[in-house]
Amino acid sequence: MSRARSARGEEARLEVAALPMKSMDPVREKAERARAAALRLQAASNSERVRGVLAMADALERAASRILAANEEDLAEARATGLAAPLLSRLKLTPEKLRLTLDGVRSLARMEDPLGRTLRSTLLDDGLRLYQVTVPLGVVACVFESRPDASIQIPALTYRSGNAALLKGGREADRTNRAIVEALRAAVPEPDAVQLLEGRAEVEAVLALDALVDLVIPRGSSEFVRHVMSRTRIPVLGHAAGVCHVYVHASADPAKVVPLVLDAKTDNPSACNAAETLLVDRAAAHLVRPIVEALAKAGVEVRASERARGHAAELAKPAAPEDFGAEFGDLTLALDVVDGLEEAVAFVNRHGSRHTDVIVAEDREAARRFVAAVDSAGVFVNASPRFADGYRYGLGAEVGVSTSKLHARGPVGMDGLTTTKWVLVGEGHVAGRYQGAAAKPFKHEPRPGAAWSDEFPDGR
Amino acid sequence: MSRARSARGEEARLEVAALPMKSMDPVREKAERARAAALRLQAASNSERVRGVLAMADALERAASRILAANEEDLAEARATGLAAPLLSRLKLTPEKLRLTLDGVRSLARMEDPLGRTLRSTLLDDGLRLYQVTVPLGVVACVFESRPDASIQIPALTYRSGNAALLKGGREADRTNRAIVEALRAAVPEPDAVQLLEGRAEVEAVLALDALVDLVIPRGSSEFVRHVMSRTRIPVLGHAAGVCHVYVHASADPAKVVPLVLDAKTDNPSACNAAETLLVDRAAAHLVRPIVEALAKAGVEVRASERARGHAAELAKPAAPEDFGAEFGDLTLALDVVDGLEEAVAFVNRHGSRHTDVIVAEDREAARRFVAAVDSAGVFVNASPRFADGYRYGLGAEVGVSTSKLHARGPVGMDGLTTTKWVLVGEGHVAGRYQGAAAKPFKHEPRPGAAWSDEFPDGR
Repeated sequence: MSRARSARGEEARLEVAALPMKSMDPVREKAERARAAALRLQAASNSERVRGVLAMADALERAASRILAANEEDLAEARATGLAAPLLSRLKLTPEKLRLTLDGVRSLARMEDPLGRTLRSTLLDDGLRLYQVTVPLGVVACVFESRPDASIQIPALTYRSGNAALLKGGREADRTNRAIVEALRAAVPEPDAVQLLEGRAEVEAVLALDALVDLVIPRGSSEFVRHVMSRTRIPVLGHAAGVCHVYVHASADPAKVVPLVLDAKTDNPSACNAAETLLVDRAAAHLVRPIVEALAKAGVEVRASERARGHAAELAKPAAPEDFGAEFGDLTLALDVVDGLEEAVAFVNRHGSRHTDVIVAEDREAARRFVAAVDSAGVFVNASPRFADGYRYGLGAEVGVSTSKLHARGPVGMDGLTTTKWVLVGEGHVAGRYQGAAAKPFKHEPRPGAAWSDEFPDGR
Repeated sequence: MSRARSARGEEARLEVAALPMKSMDPVREKAERARAAALRLQAASNSERVRGVLAMADALERAASRILAANEEDLAEARATGLAAPLLSRLKLTPEKLRLTLDGVRSLARMEDPLGRTLRSTLLDDGLRLYQVTVPLGVVACVFESRPDASIQIPALTYRSGNAALLKGGREADRTNRAIVEALRAAVPEPDAVQLLEGRAEVEAVLALDALVDLVIPRGSSEFVRHVMSRTRIPVLGHAAGVCHVYVHASADPAKVVPLVLDAKTDNPSACNAAETLLVDRAAAHLVRPIVEALAKAGVEVRASERARGHAAELAKPAAPEDFGAEFGDLTLALDVVDGLEEAVAFVNRHGSRHTDVIVAEDREAARRFVAAVDSAGVFVNASPRFADGYRYGLGAEVGVSTSKLHARGPVGMDGLTTTKWVLVGEGHVAGRYQGAAAKPFKHEPRPGAAWSDEFPDGR
């Protein structure tokens, strides 16, 4: 247990008071310990990090009964305070859910190392070799909702990719998360790479530590994400909104349209990758009625523009202008009819949140134009936006979904937790030789296949 | 000429007053035009963008005499206001400098397209193909110093990589930059992708437009960069400081040390990639004297720690604690002696600015450990930190150097001006099929060599 966390009783507080100033700030101390651990993990080998992740899975397996008991206590309190049924079900950790999550953790261990990959290799001049190599980000602060599997997946992802994590889960899952993180910290060689933040105040304090924390990943309501973005100079990765569109093109295969729209809206309406707006091309307007009928049968309230209501008036409510671009998060769907592909693209780029947007079309040129012109993290052809997810993409797991364009975009797995380092190896080369009147020219020869690790054959 | 820029006379102002509200904000209008141009460029083909860049070079060649005349006027005013000689020399655009810059622009046209590259291709299930594809960032605002070649290089880089640029150069180069941008805008099919911002006030206004501008690149003093970072929610790419270290390891080849240290400090002391601190290993302390003697001869003031002064006391001044980590930007160098590699690494990670740091060593294992453990954008072995530059790295040119870890790190060329888009192509696939009791398993088969463009063989 860190000194900071023991500092609760009167005696401990006196002991801390005698320490130098900087130790009096428990959050800064956590972050400093995390940075030191991250610097050590940056230099650790792949096999050390793999062993750490496998040790995490083993430790959680051994601690399963303690973790599940803690979860029972969290659930009992949540029931007593009247938490809604869907939230209770997210909070509940069953032996089966734990087993599946640990399978996922072990699959991360099997995946290719995201670090040390040579992205670019160039011979600048004889004996002067440049490499661009993937390295960890450093210290990542993750604030997430009540699902306790996130407090397993996120540290597994960060540890595997050589990062330290400062974690803050939902308050409802407090006992579960403590049991999990305690087991994780006891299992790994760098326990300071996995730390819990206590309460909202510590999260706020972390947002000020821009010299120590490299990235903040907030997961939760749009308001919370925007609050974090406005409160910190640390880069923030995440999404404030998920306003996904499905556009039914004139060439859409009618057999694909209804199942895809139903899945997009009803599979999990509160998810960020659920559809919020349906656009039907005027040339496919005959599909509006069967779509709206199927949606009504599934309990979806359709809010249609005037021009869309002309095609299924009695089934749809009139839409207000603000319904387009709204994130309903429930069984509500906005509907409009558009005049062709160009209008659909402009509509999506104007009203969407750049998360994931779909075209249903058999015409490949129309699909190509939609894919090229829509400015979103995911652009899908004939597939439900619900596939926008790190596990479904095959990334193993995700720390979040990014709608920002900088760094990582879409579901963020291990690659999104890396940055690059430029490694230049010379033989005493000086830059002055390559400028001025008698400048030596650069060669700039690409060296496909050359890896920085070739420079250090004894490296681990 | 845009409506906004004509709105200077009384008459024009009246005309603008009659327009709807949003048109009254000239900066927002510029940014909106830039975003629209960026969306069109995102969908433009490689050959369209290449033609645009070549047209830029041709147009500047044709406008050379007008540009050089404008530069003469800028120089005359700068001389009259007493601008320092080094700044005058940076401001001066000669026919030779222009020719070299245009060679660089044409070389960007020849480089491989940074867009549309498939970084990842995965078969999620039969018929469900996922691609991660490079796409432009969108609208980039660049604020740079007085060098007029930057106002050629930056728009060439952004246009080639499908981005729109809002440019603000140094006030001293105002006439030159106007002449350049006027020629560029007349030459390209998307003139709104190259726009000038007028004065500091327009830069401040752009910083508030986080819904329209995707990235801000400030180049200038540390104070200016920090000011921009604190004033905007738009991601900022750049560096506030360049505090580069050279560490002379016990195994250093003495013949390499002095030329490398001299180049690192004296080749261009005001550049961000010049060395500010020299660390000599205790085991190589016999090299302190020849290094300090050579530096003194070159006019460098050495400020040494107590333990370093023990080795060349009469030549070096005593260093103050704040000299370590300082960006002198002139012929001053801090010097310390360290107890081995571990202390050198810790010193660099504590005092450096994560820009570029160098080890001079023949021992490959020492070099490997330094490269692995130093947390900087560039880590060099036996090469001067002055090589940290987009042109020298073979990136064609650079929009800036990034010490942030998110997105692009080090010199930022075209690749750093791209992000990715996830393209998923299915046959009506719904996500509900892959979950619950009867869930279909994902295949997640990597498809090496498969490109998203294969899906759209008719695409340009």
